Amino acid sequence: MNEPPASTPGHSLDPQSEQEWTEFRSQAHHMLDDMIDDLATLRDGPVWRPLPEDRRSAFRAAPVPGEAGSLDDWRRSFREDILPYTTGNRHPGFMGWVHGGGTPVGMAAEMLAAGLNANLGGRDHAPVEVERMVIRWAATLMGLPENASGLLVTGSSMANFIAVIVASRATPDGLSLRTAGLKSRRLIGYAAKTVHGCVSRAFDMAGLGSEALRLVDVDQEFKMDVAVLRRMIEADRAAGLEPFLVVGTAGSVDTGSIDPLDDIADVAKSERLWFHVDGAFGATAVLSETIRPRLVGLERADSIAFDFHKWAQAPYDAGCVLVRDPARHAAAFAQSLSYLSREDRGLAAGAPWFCDLGPDLSRGFRALKVWATLSVYGTRRLGEMVDRCCAVTRRLAQRVEAEPMLELMAPISLNIVCFRVCARQCDDVENDILNGEIVKDLQESGIAAPSTTVINGRKVIRAAIVNHRTEYADVERLVDAVLACTASRSGGA
Amino acid sequence: MNEPPASTPGHSLDPQSEQEWTEFRSQAHHMLDDMIDDLATLRDGPVWRPLPEDRRSAFRAAPVPGEAGSLDDWRRSFREDILPYTTGNRHPGFMGWVHGGGTPVGMAAEMLAAGLNANLGGRDHAPVEVERMVIRWAATLMGLPENASGLLVTGSSMANFIAVIVASRATPDGLSLRTAGLKSRRLIGYAAKTVHGCVSRAFDMAGLGSEALRLVDVDQEFKMDVAVLRRMIEADRAAGLEPFLVVGTAGSVDTGSIDPLDDIADVAKSERLWFHVDGAFGATAVLSETIRPRLVGLERADSIAFDFHKWAQAPYDAGCVLVRDPARHAAAFAQSLSYLSREDRGLAAGAPWFCDLGPDLSRGFRALKVWATLSVYGTRRLGEMVDRCCAVTRRLAQRVEAEPMLELMAPISLNIVCFRVCARQCDDVENDILNGEIVKDLQESGIAAPSTTVINGRKVIRAAIVNHRTEYADVERLVDAVLACTASRSGGA
Ligand SMILES: Cc1ncc(COP(=O)(O)O)c(C=O)c1O
Ligand SMILES: Cc1ncc(COP(=O)(O)O)c(C=O)c1O
Repeated sequence: MNEPPASTPGHSLDPQSEQEWTEFRSQAHHMLDDMIDDLATLRDGPVWRPLPEDRRSAFRAAPVPGEAGSLDDWRRSFREDILPYTTGNRHPGFMGWVHGGGTPVGMAAEMLAAGLNANLGGRDHAPVEVERMVIRWAATLMGLPENASGLLVTGSSMANFIAVIVASRATPDGLSLRTAGLKSRRLIGYAAKTVHGCVSRAFDMAGLGSEALRLVDVDQEFKMDVAVLRRMIEADRAAGLEPFLVVGTAGSVDTGSIDPLDDIADVAKSERLWFHVDGAFGATAVLSETIRPRLVGLERADSIAFDFHKWAQAPYDAGCVLVRDPARHAAAFAQSLSYLSREDRGLAAGAPWFCDLGPDLSRGFRALKVWATLSVYGTRRLGEMVDRCCAVTRRLAQRVEAEPMLELMAPISLNIVCFRVCARQCDDVENDILNGEIVKDLQESGIAAPSTTVINGRKVIRAAIVNHRTEYADVERLVDAVLACTASRSGGA
Repeated sequence: MNEPPASTPGHSLDPQSEQEWTEFRSQAHHMLDDMIDDLATLRDGPVWRPLPEDRRSAFRAAPVPGEAGSLDDWRRSFREDILPYTTGNRHPGFMGWVHGGGTPVGMAAEMLAAGLNANLGGRDHAPVEVERMVIRWAATLMGLPENASGLLVTGSSMANFIAVIVASRATPDGLSLRTAGLKSRRLIGYAAKTVHGCVSRAFDMAGLGSEALRLVDVDQEFKMDVAVLRRMIEADRAAGLEPFLVVGTAGSVDTGSIDPLDDIADVAKSERLWFHVDGAFGATAVLSETIRPRLVGLERADSIAFDFHKWAQAPYDAGCVLVRDPARHAAAFAQSLSYLSREDRGLAAGAPWFCDLGPDLSRGFRALKVWATLSVYGTRRLGEMVDRCCAVTRRLAQRVEAEPMLELMAPISLNIVCFRVCARQCDDVENDILNGEIVKDLQESGIAAPSTTVINGRKVIRAAIVNHRTEYADVERLVDAVLACTASRSGGA
C-alpha cells in the first residue's frame, strides 16, 4: 500500500465554487422551463415524428465521451435531438398501446426524487414510509385489507412475475422450491386467452414454462369462460398435475374486457388456487364510482398487479404489486445476508425491508411521484378522469358505428376501441394490409397515433384512450384522418 | 351505450389557464431551488437522523386522499417530512452498504426524463437510441464487442437474474425451457462463497433453486479458488448434473475482492460454461487507468451485470446488463404478441425492442441520466473519481492499522475497509456486540454511517467509499468517532 498524500486528490463531481453552483442552478432552471414550455404547448406539435436518419446515425456513431463536456452543450443536444422525437404518449392524439400521459405534478415530484437519490431497498428513513403509505392506499382502494403487503416495481410485467413467484411459494411445501428448485413439481396456472403476454413470460422466467399457463376460452365479450376453467382444472388434476394459480384480467390489453372476477374467485376458493388479478390499467377504474361495481371480485384477490404509470398518469415507470397475506409475500423473497443485517435502532432498523418483497435490492423512489399524484389530484378527480376517458372512448365507438366504411371489431368495455376499415373492393387479407398501412400513415402524419392488434384473426386499428388530455375533438380527428388515409390509398391504388 | 354529451366532460390534469401554468411554474422552480440548496449544503447537516415517531405515525395514519390538495401543501410536507429524514447516501459521511452519492447533473437529467415521460419498452423514437448508445458505450468500456446487447434495469440484482435466464436458455436445447419449463433438467451454476445474495436469489426465482448455485471456496484474499471450482464441476458432471454457468465477482460486497476473472474465463471456456461477471460496483473501476489491469478477464465475459447508480453516481435506479451475443440475449426473452407487432415504418418500427431483452415491457428513461453523467463528466474524470475513492479507502485502512484499538479484518482491494474494535477486556462474542452497537451509535450521532458485516465469523464495521464527495477528513472523522463511541461505552460499562 503506497502512502497516500496529505490532501484528498482531485475533487468531487459537485460544482466547485459559488460561481459554479450559480451556473448549475441557472442551467437547471432553464431545463425546467424547457420542459414546462414543452408540456404547455404539446397540442401544437405532431403526436410523433420519425427520428431523422442523420440524427439516428449520430447516436449510433457517437464515441464514448472521454473528456468532460459542458452541461450547456448536453442540454442543447437534448433539446434538438431528443425533445422533438419522443414516443408522443404525452400528446392527446396518442392512442397506441396502453401509455399514460404523465402530469406536471408527477414530473415535479420525480425531479425531487432525482435530487434525493434515495435507495428504497431498505433501511429506516422517510422515503420507505412513503412507499408503505402508498401501498396501504393502493390496497385500500382495491378493497384489500389495510395491512396487505406490496411494493412498487417497474411495471405490471414485473408485478405479475412477483405474483407468480409468491403464488408458487404459497403451495404446499412451496418454500422448498426456493432452495431445491422446481424439480418434479408440475405446477399449472390458468388465465383467459386474452391475458397479457407478460403472464406467460412470468411462467417462462420462473422456470415453470409458458405451457404451464393454460389459456382458457373466452366468450363473445372476450371474458374468461369460467365453466371451461373448471373443466380444465379437473382434467389437469386427473392427469396428476398441480393447479396452483388462476389469473383474472381486469382490462385486457386488446379490448379492455374484464374477466368475471367474482366467479373466478369462487373457483379459486373451491379449488384452493391462488387468485391473482392483472389489472395493469383496468384496476385504476376502481377510482370511478360508475365503473367500480363492474370490478366486483377484485377485492377477493390474493394478489393484484397494476400500474400507476398507465391510467393513473404517474410518470414512467411505476408498477405495483399487492399481496393480501404479508407473511406469504415475505416468505417468497426474504433472505438473510450478513451485509444486510437488520438492527433494533439506527439506520439499519425498520424491517421488513422492501428488498424482502421482490427481486430488487437497490430501488428508486417511485413512491414519491405516486404520493404526489394521489395527494394533489385526489382519488375523486382521478376517478373523474377515468370516466372522462371512457366517455371519449364511447364517442369514438359511436362515430365508428356511424361511418359506413368502418366496423367496430369488439364490444367497448372501458377505454379501448378496436375498429377496422373495410374497403369493399378488398378481401379480408387485403383489408388486413390496408389497416396496417393506414395506422403507419396516421402515425407518420403526426395527427394521431393508434396502434394495431389482431381480433378474431383480423388486423384492426386499436385506440386506447389512456391519456387524460384526450378529448372528443381528438377522436373525431382520428376518424377523419382514418377516412382521409383510406381515400388517398384507394385513390392511389 | 348512453349518448355522450357534445363537449368533453371535466378537464385534463394539466393546469387549466395561463395563470395556473404560471403558478405551477413558480412552484416547480421553488422545488428545484429547494433541492439545489439542499445539495449545496449537505455537509452542514447530519449524515442521517431518525425519523421522529410522530412523523412516522402521521404517514401510517394518513387516509387515502379523496379530494384534491394543493401542490404548495404537498411541497411543504415534502420539505418537512421527507427532506430531513432520508438515507443519507448523498452525504460524504455515508459509508454504509454500497450506495452512490448522486450528482447535480444526474438530478437535472432525471428531471427532464420525468417531463418526457418516455416508455422505453420499444417503438421508434430518440430515447431508445439513447439507451442503445449508452449500452454500446458500456460494452466498449468493459471490453465487450461494440455490438454486444444489453439493457438498463433497476439494478444488478435484476441484471444478474437476466444473465442467469439468458445463460440457461443458451444451453443445448435451452430454448425449450421457455415453453416446457425446467422439468428434469439439473442445471448447476458456480460462484465464490463471497458472491452477492442476489445471485442465489436469481437461481431461486428462475426455478433452479438456490442450492443449484454451488459456492466455491475462497483464498485468504476472498477470491475464488479456481482449483476448487474445477473439482466441483468435475464432481457434478460425474453425478450426472449439468454445469452451465460460472459467476465471477468483480468487487465483492463484503470486502471488494476481485475474483481471478481470467482464470475463471479459462475454466468456462474449457468446460463450455457461460461466464458471467457480477461487477455491481467493481466493474466501474474499468474507468480507472490504474485499476483496469486488475480486471483482466472481464472482457472475456459472456455477460456482465453492473450499476450506474453505485460507483458511477447516476441517481437511483440504474443497473445494466450486457450480453456478448445479441442473438442469445434476444432468444431468451423475445415474444411475438399481436398487440406489439413490429412494422417497417411508423411508430412501431425499430425492432428489436428493449422488451425483447428482459422482463419489462413498460420501462422508464434511465438512459438519459446515464448519458448525461457520461457526457458531462466524461469517463476520464469518472475514473479519477474512482481513484480518489480508493485513495480515501487506503487512508482509512492506514489509520485503522495505526490505531491500537482497531484491527483491519480484510485486505483492501478497492473501496471497502472492514475493521473492528477489539476491546481487550471483551471476548469475541462481546466484541461482536460492541461493534454492532458502535455502528448504531455512529449512525445515530449523524457523524458517519458505516454498516456492518461478518468476516471470518466476526461482526465487523464496514466502510465502503462509494461517494464522490467523501474525503480524507471524512474517514478521519469516522475513526475518531469510532474511538469516541468505544470510550464512552467502556466508560459506561
Ligand atoms: C393487461 C396488461 N397486463 C400487463 C401489462 C404489462 O404492463 P407493463 O407494461 O407495465 O409491464 C399490460 C401493458 O399494457 C397490460 O395491458
Ligand atoms: C457485488 C454486488 N452484486 C450485486 C449487488 C446488487 O445490486 P443492486 O443493489 O443494484 O440490485 C450488490 C449490491 O450492493 C453488490 O455489491
